[in-house]
Amino acid sequence: MKLYEFEAFPNPRRVRMFLAEKGVSVDRIQVNVPEGEHRTDAITAKNPSATVPFLEFEDGTCISETTAISRYFEAKQPKPSLFGATPADQGRIDMWQRRVEDGLFNAILTYFHHATPGLGELELYQNKDWGENNRERAHKTMLWLDRELANRPYVAGDTYSIADITALCGIDFCKFVELDIPADCANLQRWYDEVASRPSAAA
Amino acid sequence: MKLYEFEAFPNPRRVRMFLAEKGVSVDRIQVNVPEGEHRTDAITAKNPSATVPFLEFEDGTCISETTAISRYFEAKQPKPSLFGATPADQGRIDMWQRRVEDGLFNAILTYFHHATPGLGELELYQNKDWGENNRERAHKTMLWLDRELANRPYVAGDTYSIADITALCGIDFCKFVELDIPADCANLQRWYDEVASRPSAAA
Repeated sequence: MKLYEFEAFPNPRRVRMFLAEKGVSVDRIQVNVPEGEHRTDAITAKNPSATVPFLEFEDGTCISETTAISRYFEAKQPKPSLFGATPADQGRIDMWQRRVEDGLFNAILTYFHHATPGLGELELYQNKDWGENNRERAHKTMLWLDRELANRPYVAGDTYSIADITALCGIDFCKFVELDIPADCANLQRWYDEVASRPSAAA
Repeated sequence: MKLYEFEAFPNPRRVRMFLAEKGVSVDRIQVNVPEGEHRTDAITAKNPSATVPFLEFEDGTCISETTAISRYFEAKQPKPSLFGATPADQGRIDMWQRRVEDGLFNAILTYFHHATPGLGELELYQNKDWGENNRERAHKTMLWLDRELANRPYVAGDTYSIADITALCGIDFCKFVELDIPADCANLQRWYDEVASRPSAAA
């Protein structure tokens, strides 16, 4: 089994953090996205979406999409559970995973790709106003998370989950594009300091 | 347990179809979204995202997000499996669920909300160019699905899954905004005719 990625990017980091929390090791192959390797026939034959990360099995079949790859490993090795053990936990974690992915992680990546030079010539379509709107969405999601984290230790409840990984990678990408955690968000900052100090954050 | 929804909308339909395939019945409460009821304090106290559908448990806690609600019911009643039984199935179905949700279902809803009058005064921000770009993405995803469906009966493999529900609701919303299945997409049309004739499609 091989994990195709580009190490500097935030979605591959999400998978590496997930694997680190599981204690699972997978061979990694770098796809040179800045030079367009993700759009070569050799890669799109494996992943027509032309994205990283994706996972290739021994039989040649592949799974792309960050959460889908994580889901595979959760099913293979359920403990420690990062998607939730009970039905209610699974539903709640999936809800928060979606909320922080859409409102924070994807929002700030959208800002990067649309309202900054992004990946330069690799950007096939840019819409600056859409990008700026998403930067504001990411900011608002941080304010929302701060209110939520007044009442519980982690994004989706009492235990660390995939939603914490997504939120941490989202906030670190916010920092990368110079959108810091708002100064008055003490709950979010407390949460950030804890999850950023886990060994998985350096994976 | 209560399911809050607005029956005419496509995301609530996805949950109803999921429940119909599971043979599960849940009390439903209509939230009058066209009149702005989803943004009232009574509703946002339950679901701060101000979206439908969402599920309310007897203890007052709620789960929003279409896929998260479906995930809860999958865990409660695993058969028939709509998210996959084996780890590889779960990964592959999650991948296709994401691909058709992002590239088809969400894309065509984005077109509706941004490049048409959408929900009128309820639209807080519109970006016509982004909407038109997403209409084209939905079109391209239909062409891609047509190629994929040359080799298998369902979106994610040999069995019906949540990805078929998402794709069907996406294509029916395409039809609603006058983007039909391309005439030369015989595989996609064959798939559509089958899944649209299942009893769940009328749920």
